Amino acid sequence: MSKMNIVLGIDIGGTNTSFGFVDRAGTIIAETSMETKSNDAVEYFVTRLHHRIEEIRTGLPSHHLCGIGIGAPNANYYRGTIEKAVHLNWGGTVDFVGLIRKYYTIPVSITNDANAAAIGEMLFGNARGMKNFMVITLGTGLGSGIVVDGRLLYGNRGFARELGHTMVDPAGRRCRCGKKGCLETYASAAGLVKTALLLITERCDPSPLRAMDFEEITSKVIFELAQKGDEIALEAFNQTAKILGMKLADAVALTGPEAIFLSGGLSMAGDILLKPTQQYMEDFLFSAYKGSVKLMLSGMAPGKSAILGAAALIWSELDL
Amino acid sequence: MSKMNIVLGIDIGGTNTSFGFVDRAGTIIAETSMETKSNDAVEYFVTRLHHRIEEIRTGLPSHHLCGIGIGAPNANYYRGTIEKAVHLNWGGTVDFVGLIRKYYTIPVSITNDANAAAIGEMLFGNARGMKNFMVITLGTGLGSGIVVDGRLLYGNRGFARELGHTMVDPAGRRCRCGKKGCLETYASAAGLVKTALLLITERCDPSPLRAMDFEEITSKVIFELAQKGDEIALEAFNQTAKILGMKLADAVALTGPEAIFLSGGLSMAGDILLKPTQQYMEDFLFSAYKGSVKLMLSGMAPGKSAILGAAALIWSELDL
Repeated sequence: MSKMNIVLGIDIGGTNTSFGFVDRAGTIIAETSMETKSNDAVEYFVTRLHHRIEEIRTGLPSHHLCGIGIGAPNANYYRGTIEKAVHLNWGGTVDFVGLIRKYYTIPVSITNDANAAAIGEMLFGNARGMKNFMVITLGTGLGSGIVVDGRLLYGNRGFARELGHTMVDPAGRRCRCGKKGCLETYASAAGLVKTALLLITERCDPSPLRAMDFEEITSKVIFELAQKGDEIALEAFNQTAKILGMKLADAVALTGPEAIFLSGGLSMAGDILLKPTQQYMEDFLFSAYKGSVKLMLSGMAPGKSAILGAAALIWSELDL
Repeated sequence: MSKMNIVLGIDIGGTNTSFGFVDRAGTIIAETSMETKSNDAVEYFVTRLHHRIEEIRTGLPSHHLCGIGIGAPNANYYRGTIEKAVHLNWGGTVDFVGLIRKYYTIPVSITNDANAAAIGEMLFGNARGMKNFMVITLGTGLGSGIVVDGRLLYGNRGFARELGHTMVDPAGRRCRCGKKGCLETYASAAGLVKTALLLITERCDPSPLRAMDFEEITSKVIFELAQKGDEIALEAFNQTAKILGMKLADAVALTGPEAIFLSGGLSMAGDILLKPTQQYMEDFLFSAYKGSVKLMLSGMAPGKSAILGAAALIWSELDL
């Protein structure tokens, strides 16, 4: 009997790294995660990772591993590197694909995590059959993956496209990137919390938020209160949606997607975020584009999209 | 002796239509222009255009016409149409390529004028050899042509990408598109004039502008005063550059060009516009992109870029 082809999808985060073996249909055959421990040297991380991969792989004797896809912060697709990743203490430029190739001779590709999510959406999610779309990952920050004519838009140097660092207000909130007023300081889980805190000071509406410690106020808490009709929480979502909708309209003007998919933790707010964002985006769209762009939730299972995206990256290359 | 291959490049504007016969090296062999008279029916325009084309073509017996490229406002590349063009009184959707094909059986293509300028820059101008770049046309409005991986970025429906209608200020200047605060109401010849008029009211600096009629104050007048050190004129350029630089930084974040070329009437201001725009763009760029994007003037001769762009559009397709 011939072996079934599978790939390995690896998602590297500042705290945890998860990976899974994925078949061409997008089924995760086996998966696990480990601590990234990025204060240790990257060589040590890759050794540990290889060890864990092989532990699981020996349990899959009827499968043939034919490629490895990796999603990581600040990954450069062209160079196979991770460069100056803030949450990974590995220094300037790490030849990550080179390190993996010491253990594996099969094809290896790396890209930024939002790009991986976009390829995942195209192969396994709601963007199947689409040639022009965007995926916006709304977590602590805001990541973006843009597909044009069926291919990821990398631009000149292979880095991710960064909708999250486009400008909302030059005098606005300080961003971890060093600039002020970036979109992700408003439209992200962390941005929503900041907006809610500001609203508590600016408005008089009663709200259970007023009785909470600062650290208790998370995007999840705000979402749950919004579901119950809390005015502060609803207005925090409304203001987030307005800014996000405005910048999505700009992104439509520049890249012409047929649909925009929201993924990541904050997208689990569903219609409370999606509906006003769609409305504001529509208001801000140039007349020729009005009514032409769908705003939808990602079709990838929450918590699986990072592994599936990394797997989709390498499947999309093996398919060529 | 074999005939030399040439194409016809046609630039359709609200007032005038110009066209020229162009060889593969970008030399205009012959050219002329005529009134568009767009209050007449489009069929009548095409009949007149055909007549004028043939008048000139009979003078070129040693050349072989192998394609027609057209640049026009609101042109749809995929459909070959001109749709709801504000300055062309031809109604909703005109099958312009279909009308031209009644007279010519050779390949015909149409696109928006800024897109044509971008292909012209790639074939005949300063973008030769580049795969990722943008062309910004600064005239009465602001047009944009974006090239990614060596191909024009059309997006889902074949319309132009409209950097000019991205948002600067939702409560800002009324735009002819119906929205408020679009970039082109600030960064264009008309936008510069508006900014100068505002500065006259807001500032106390003496300036010859204060002695002029409103209608005398053009972008050319402001440029000439800026060259002489007029504070109001210089500040008008500075504010224009700041807004343009900020939105160019956003566009870099989304599409990753190696260079951005300014063309159109306002770009003739040269360093007075270019230098501060480059500086502001650099300030607003996300750290990973800093220092990676050149801002330059178009390499196409002013006044020739529209015909050359339209010719380049069809040359680029004949080359495939």
